[in-house]
Amino acid sequence: MNVTVRGHTRHYRTVTFDREKNHILLIEQRLLPHRFEIIATQDFRETAQAIRDMVVRGAGAIGATAAYGLAQGVRAFRGSDAGRFRGHVQTVYTTLKEARPTAVDPVNAMNEVRRAMSAGKTVAEKQVLALNAAEEFANEDVRHCEAIGRHGVKLIRNGMRILTHCNAGWLAFVDIGSATAPLYAAQARGKKFHVFCDETRPRSQGATLTAWELAQQGISHQIIADNAAGHLMQRREIDLVIVGSDRTLGRTGEVANKIGTYTKAVLAKRHDIPFYVGIPLSTIDWELKSGLAIPIEERDAGEVLGAWGAISNPQSAIRNPRTGRPAYVRVANPTSGARNPGFDVTPADLITGIITPAGIFKPQELWPQRRKLGFVERDMIVKNGARCRV
Amino acid sequence: MNVTVRGHTRHYRTVTFDREKNHILLIEQRLLPHRFEIIATQDFRETAQAIRDMVVRGAGAIGATAAYGLAQGVRAFRGSDAGRFRGHVQTVYTTLKEARPTAVDPVNAMNEVRRAMSAGKTVAEKQVLALNAAEEFANEDVRHCEAIGRHGVKLIRNGMRILTHCNAGWLAFVDIGSATAPLYAAQARGKKFHVFCDETRPRSQGATLTAWELAQQGISHQIIADNAAGHLMQRREIDLVIVGSDRTLGRTGEVANKIGTYTKAVLAKRHDIPFYVGIPLSTIDWELKSGLAIPIEERDAGEVLGAWGAISNPQSAIRNPRTGRPAYVRVANPTSGARNPGFDVTPADLITGIITPAGIFKPQELWPQRRKLGFVERDMIVKNGARCRV
Repeated sequence: MNVTVRGHTRHYRTVTFDREKNHILLIEQRLLPHRFEIIATQDFRETAQAIRDMVVRGAGAIGATAAYGLAQGVRAFRGSDAGRFRGHVQTVYTTLKEARPTAVDPVNAMNEVRRAMSAGKTVAEKQVLALNAAEEFANEDVRHCEAIGRHGVKLIRNGMRILTHCNAGWLAFVDIGSATAPLYAAQARGKKFHVFCDETRPRSQGATLTAWELAQQGISHQIIADNAAGHLMQRREIDLVIVGSDRTLGRTGEVANKIGTYTKAVLAKRHDIPFYVGIPLSTIDWELKSGLAIPIEERDAGEVLGAWGAISNPQSAIRNPRTGRPAYVRVANPTSGARNPGFDVTPADLITGIITPAGIFKPQELWPQRRKLGFVERDMIVKNGARCRV
Repeated sequence: MNVTVRGHTRHYRTVTFDREKNHILLIEQRLLPHRFEIIATQDFRETAQAIRDMVVRGAGAIGATAAYGLAQGVRAFRGSDAGRFRGHVQTVYTTLKEARPTAVDPVNAMNEVRRAMSAGKTVAEKQVLALNAAEEFANEDVRHCEAIGRHGVKLIRNGMRILTHCNAGWLAFVDIGSATAPLYAAQARGKKFHVFCDETRPRSQGATLTAWELAQQGISHQIIADNAAGHLMQRREIDLVIVGSDRTLGRTGEVANKIGTYTKAVLAKRHDIPFYVGIPLSTIDWELKSGLAIPIEERDAGEVLGAWGAISNPQSAIRNPRTGRPAYVRVANPTSGARNPGFDVTPADLITGIITPAGIFKPQELWPQRRKLGFVERDMIVKNGARCRV
């Protein structure tokens, strides 16, 4: 999407590849919204470090970064020895995988790159195929988001006031985003609407990343405290809710997403406000049979006990002077602890529809429509030990 | 309640009066939770300034401060001229009233003091009566909170996990608090329970004031992001909700309270979790016929766009170096604005009960039980111009 720096507006993807220098270019997301900067990783180890350090975050974005990172590592190999090359590829793969061990997207993305490489006979051929596959992975991420926008745009009418939660925007993907895709598509069609961005404590991705995105695209928006959505719904100031999803259960239609999503869904239901979830197909989990089985990550208490921001006081108008990144302030009582569940699960009965690249579905339709939605049959061992098809 | 400073535990009221020096002693709430300090206002103008600057906040606490402030001003009068004295009293009254023009509590409190003064014949007598009335106002505030605790304690069983929102604690009153009164009463009876404090963005009174209060009393508690309550309820980790109220409609049972209260009530209803409101009788509004008629204050956007906390970075472990108070950091995108409604209205159908000094009532019972609840009959002009009793 577009970013305006010192009066110049240019299109940026969250992650791109410089073929000539074999560098990966990333938006340094930890500096946002206070500063916009592109950094270049010069080899696969730097790329792994960028994933580890959250320079880049979001399912689609880290998937593409890992795919490019594998290609970057593969292309850096000098020589033609097949055995040594195989060992090198494995090192690159493992290094990138371990940069974010709980995420499934880098693994899926790199597996696609490896599958493509297997068609090559020589090291040189494999190197070409690896980068082509990484580029294809990134471009497909963009096409999927475009398709979410194409379907979701029908939901947006002139004058609507739309609530979104956290950041499922272009910064979380290669471009366009999932929950934001319908917004950008509506803007492109000249529709007028207003977005309320939930602040999304404790990490405030709504106030920082989504608000920054929308401001860069010139979309009318305001940030609200997470506490305010209920009141605005009660006073009929919200017409539509669109959020993203970290994991969507194909069998039940349940949606796991950033903590607070469930609350907005409960509120929307009470006020008969449509509640939609925008997702790429890669987030659908066809295995799990219940949202209760999703382990909810308990994150660091410090996130709840404080906040990150730009300091401005009489002595300094700075961010953290050591890193240039937003500084941490302790907000809460210093002798208190916190609970910090990272996400929650919204049941299907609260979800009006799920906007996918293949169309909009009711949550209960995902399973019956699974062929359309990228479900792949495979062997599975069931509990009694017999093999069967699912 | 108790505060422990450098190992010494002592009982403090939020506001007290030093008869000898004619000073008012206030807990400097703007320094909490990072520093505990008592300040003394030396005359009624300093007292008005303390109210204006939010050194003291909360209905009961500013009521008592204004009552003491009026007595303080009255006692400082030198001479016996009745006319000059009357003018002086009016100046003191107006100065204190204008310190927080939208609040009703200082006015009600000062009217009680003036009523008591009217029984005095001389300036000297009126001066004595003024302070006695102010002391009585403060003591009554404490007795009412004790009574809320006595009734509310029955709701708390061993092992319960209780959610509270914002600060309706002793810092908002002279002592004990309203929503917190049942907690402190339960602790005094040796019951074991755990409290989840909603952070309560944007001003974070839960994370700062309520958590500090509970920590000082040694009550088991954790702070949660406002986003997390829904998830905890869904996973059966919350058994009871108790909040306070800024204004309770006697005719409808609706409760206006800090933004986000309504959301917790909607969530509690969905999960069949009892939702109680602790209130002193002074917050009951017997006039208004609908919660929709309550004007919702739109507060400064900066509250949503940033946060206040203690900075600690490699160069300094300080708060705002100029004031000693928590420093402000800008969290949000610098080019985005915010909506910031200050409170919301919870309808009666979401409220299990209202804990008052006179007992626990269903919200629908307030009006039928109004005689018990301090409702005073008075003349009223109805629309057609006829005078009638209500």
